[in-house]
Amino acid sequence: MPDVQSTVDGVQGFQVAGVSAGLKKDNKLDFALIVSDRPCVAAGVFTANEVKAAPVLVDMQRVAENPDSIRAIAINTRSANACTGQQGIDNANATARYVAQKLGFAENQVLVMSTGVIGMQLPLEKIMNGVDLAAGSLGNDWATTAQAIMTTDTRPKSASITVTNAKGQTYHIAGISKGAGMIAPNMATMLSAVVTDADLTVEQVQGALKSAADVSYNQIVVDGDMSTNDTVLLLANGASGAKIDSGEDQAQFQEALVAVCVKLAQDVVRDGEGVTKFITLRVTGAADDESARKIANTIAISPLVKTAFFGGDANWGRIMMATGRAGVPVKPENLRLWIATGEDSRQDLLLFSGGMPTAFNEAESTRIFKESSVSVTLDCGAGSGSATVWTCDLSHDYVSINGDYRS
Amino acid sequence: MPDVQSTVDGVQGFQVAGVSAGLKKDNKLDFALIVSDRPCVAAGVFTANEVKAAPVLVDMQRVAENPDSIRAIAINTRSANACTGQQGIDNANATARYVAQKLGFAENQVLVMSTGVIGMQLPLEKIMNGVDLAAGSLGNDWATTAQAIMTTDTRPKSASITVTNAKGQTYHIAGISKGAGMIAPNMATMLSAVVTDADLTVEQVQGALKSAADVSYNQIVVDGDMSTNDTVLLLANGASGAKIDSGEDQAQFQEALVAVCVKLAQDVVRDGEGVTKFITLRVTGAADDESARKIANTIAISPLVKTAFFGGDANWGRIMMATGRAGVPVKPENLRLWIATGEDSRQDLLLFSGGMPTAFNEAESTRIFKESSVSVTLDCGAGSGSATVWTCDLSHDYVSINGDYRS
Repeated sequence: MPDVQSTVDGVQGFQVAGVSAGLKKDNKLDFALIVSDRPCVAAGVFTANEVKAAPVLVDMQRVAENPDSIRAIAINTRSANACTGQQGIDNANATARYVAQKLGFAENQVLVMSTGVIGMQLPLEKIMNGVDLAAGSLGNDWATTAQAIMTTDTRPKSASITVTNAKGQTYHIAGISKGAGMIAPNMATMLSAVVTDADLTVEQVQGALKSAADVSYNQIVVDGDMSTNDTVLLLANGASGAKIDSGEDQAQFQEALVAVCVKLAQDVVRDGEGVTKFITLRVTGAADDESARKIANTIAISPLVKTAFFGGDANWGRIMMATGRAGVPVKPENLRLWIATGEDSRQDLLLFSGGMPTAFNEAESTRIFKESSVSVTLDCGAGSGSATVWTCDLSHDYVSINGDYRS
Repeated sequence: MPDVQSTVDGVQGFQVAGVSAGLKKDNKLDFALIVSDRPCVAAGVFTANEVKAAPVLVDMQRVAENPDSIRAIAINTRSANACTGQQGIDNANATARYVAQKLGFAENQVLVMSTGVIGMQLPLEKIMNGVDLAAGSLGNDWATTAQAIMTTDTRPKSASITVTNAKGQTYHIAGISKGAGMIAPNMATMLSAVVTDADLTVEQVQGALKSAADVSYNQIVVDGDMSTNDTVLLLANGASGAKIDSGEDQAQFQEALVAVCVKLAQDVVRDGEGVTKFITLRVTGAADDESARKIANTIAISPLVKTAFFGGDANWGRIMMATGRAGVPVKPENLRLWIATGEDSRQDLLLFSGGMPTAFNEAESTRIFKESSVSVTLDCGAGSGSATVWTCDLSHDYVSINGDYRS
C-alpha cells in the first residue's frame, strides 16, 4: 500500500479553515470550511439509516443534481441536525446559502455536514458567525480544520498522499475525518471529507469513492450503531492538471485513494470511544464474501467479545458463540480459529480445530489477548469467501462517554 | 395476568436438589437435579445459535425421540460444554447415564443442561460427585436448587403458580432460571426448567411451551449476544390428576404458564449483568408484527441507547437513530415517541412527532430517564403491527463482569 502521511501539506486549489463559532463551550473549535478555487466533480457515500439527518438529505440531492460544480463543504459540530423536520432542512439550506453568498458561489455549489446531538435545531446565528470567521481565515491549516470537526474524538484525523503518474505529473489526495461512536459496518460510517487536485470525471469520482469506501469505511466497527449523519464526500478540482486516464492511471489513483481512506477509517477505530485495543478480524473459507462479512461483523459487534478483549481475558469461546449467531450456516467441526499480535492476520496460535479446543498454551493466548493490537483469523472450511473488519474493545470509558454525552 | 409467586412451595411428584460439586471455587452451589417420581411428557425450546453446546444437541435429540418418559434434568455450572467436540457429547451422555444409573432410570430419560465457560470440557469426576450428592439430598428445597444454577446472576430466580380448574382440581406450575449475559431476542435465551403436575399430552406441552416462550423468553434482551446453550424445558408429570382438556381448560393452563415464564424472563433482565434500569419498549403502528419486533430489538440492542439510559441522559435521539437502522422502512415524519415511568407503556410525555421534537419539558424527560423503570413507546404510523421487548441499560459493571469472566 502506498505511503500515506497523517498530515496534509496542501492540495492545489483548496483552502480550509477551522474556527470557534460558539457552538461548543469554552471557545473550542467547532466549525470548518473546505473551499475550492474552481468547480469540483463530487461524489458522496451516505448513511443507510432510514432516519437521515437534514444535511444528508440535502447533500444526497445536491450531489445527484449538481455533481460537477461543487465549490465548498461546511461542517458544523454540536448539533447533528437530525430528527429536526422541515426546519432542519431549511437550516441546512440556509447554511449553504450563507456560505455561497459570502464566497460568491451558487447555493447548490455548497455541501453541508453536521455532527452532534440528534434532535437539536441548528443555532443558525452561531453557524453564520462561524461562516464569517472561517471565510475570513481560509488558508492551508489542515490540522486546525481536522480539529474543528471533532466531537468525542480525542485527536484530529487527517491523511494525505502525493502521487506522481506515468506522465510525470504530480497530484495530491487529502482527507479529514471524525468518528468515535455510532460506527457500524456496511455504510459510510462517519464524517469524512476527501479532496484531490487530480482531474477526474463525475463517473470516475463516484466509482472511485464507492469502491474505496467498501474496503475502508465499510470495514470498520466501533459499536454497531449506525449514525443518522454518516457521510463521506470526495471532491476533485483538477488544479494539478494531472488528468486521470482509464486503465493504469486510474488504478494508481484508486490505490492512493484507498490508502487515504483506509488510514482515516482505521484512525476512527483506533480513536473510538474508550478504545484500548485495535482488533483485526479476518474471516476466510466462508461460502462467499457476504457470509464472511456477516460473521466478521457479528464478532465485531458482540459486546461479550469486545469486553473480553478489554479485560485481556482469552475467552475465545465467545468468538465461536458470535460466529454461530451471525445468521450464516456453519459447521463447528470445520471451524478453525487463530490469534496473533499485530494487524497482519498471521496464524500464530491455533485455538480451535475439529470442533474442539487445541492443546494451546494458555499463557501464550492470554499474552496475545492482552496486547494493544490483536489479529483474529477464523476459517470456516466451507468455501473461498473472505472478509476483513477492523474493530475495537468495549471499555468502561465507552460507557462513561455515552452515559452523559449531551451534558 | 394470574398471580405468580417468586417462591416455589412444591409441585407434586417432583423432587429437587442443589449442591456444591466442587465445580466452582469456595464450595459454592454449582450443580442441580430435578427429578420426577413418574415419567413426564417434555418439550424444549433451544438456542438458534449454529454453534450449539453438547447438552443442547443431546436434549434436542432426546426430546424429539423420547418426549413422553423423561424423568430428570441435571444442570451443571462452570463449564458450558460448548465447542468441546465429540468428547463434549460423550461427557453430556455420561452425565445423563450416571444420573440414570443412580436413580434407576434409562439413560434416555435424563436431560442435561450446562452453563459457564465455552470451550472447557466437563470435569466428569466432579459432576458425578455432584450427582451423588444431589441424589442423596432430593427434596423440596427449590430455593437452593435455583441458587445452584446461577452464574453471574446476583440472585436466584424462581416462580410458581397454583391453578384450580373448572372441575375444582388444583395443579401447580413452577420454574427456575439463570440468565445474566448472552441474552438476545427470538430464541430461548437462557437456561430455564419449568415443571408442572398437570396432566398434558406431548403435543400440548410442546405447543404450550413454544407459545409461552414467544411472549416471554423471546421478548427479552440483555446484550444481544446469543448463547450456545440457551434451553427452556417444560416437563409435565400429571401427578396432580388434573387433566388439561382442550378449550377453556387449556387456555387457563396457557395463561398460567405464560405468567410463570414472563416472571422468570423479566427477572433475567432485572438481574442482567450490571443492570441498573428495567426498560419496557413497545413499538406500535408498524407495517406488521415482525417489523415492530425488528425495530424494538434494534433499539434494545443499541449500545448508545443503553448507555444513555445508564447515564440517565434523556438522549432520545438515539432511539430514533436505532429505529432507523433496524432494516425496516420507516417514515421519520410519521414516527411518534413517548416515555413514561413504570412498565405499562403509558404515553405520558410525547418527545417526537411530525418529524421533529415536540416542545416537551426537558426537566420532565430527564426525570423519567433517571427512573429505575422506564417505558418507551414508539408509534410508526404505518399499520397495526406491534411488539414489546423488555431490556436494560449498559453499565460500567457489565464491562467489569465480562472483562474477566473466566478468571
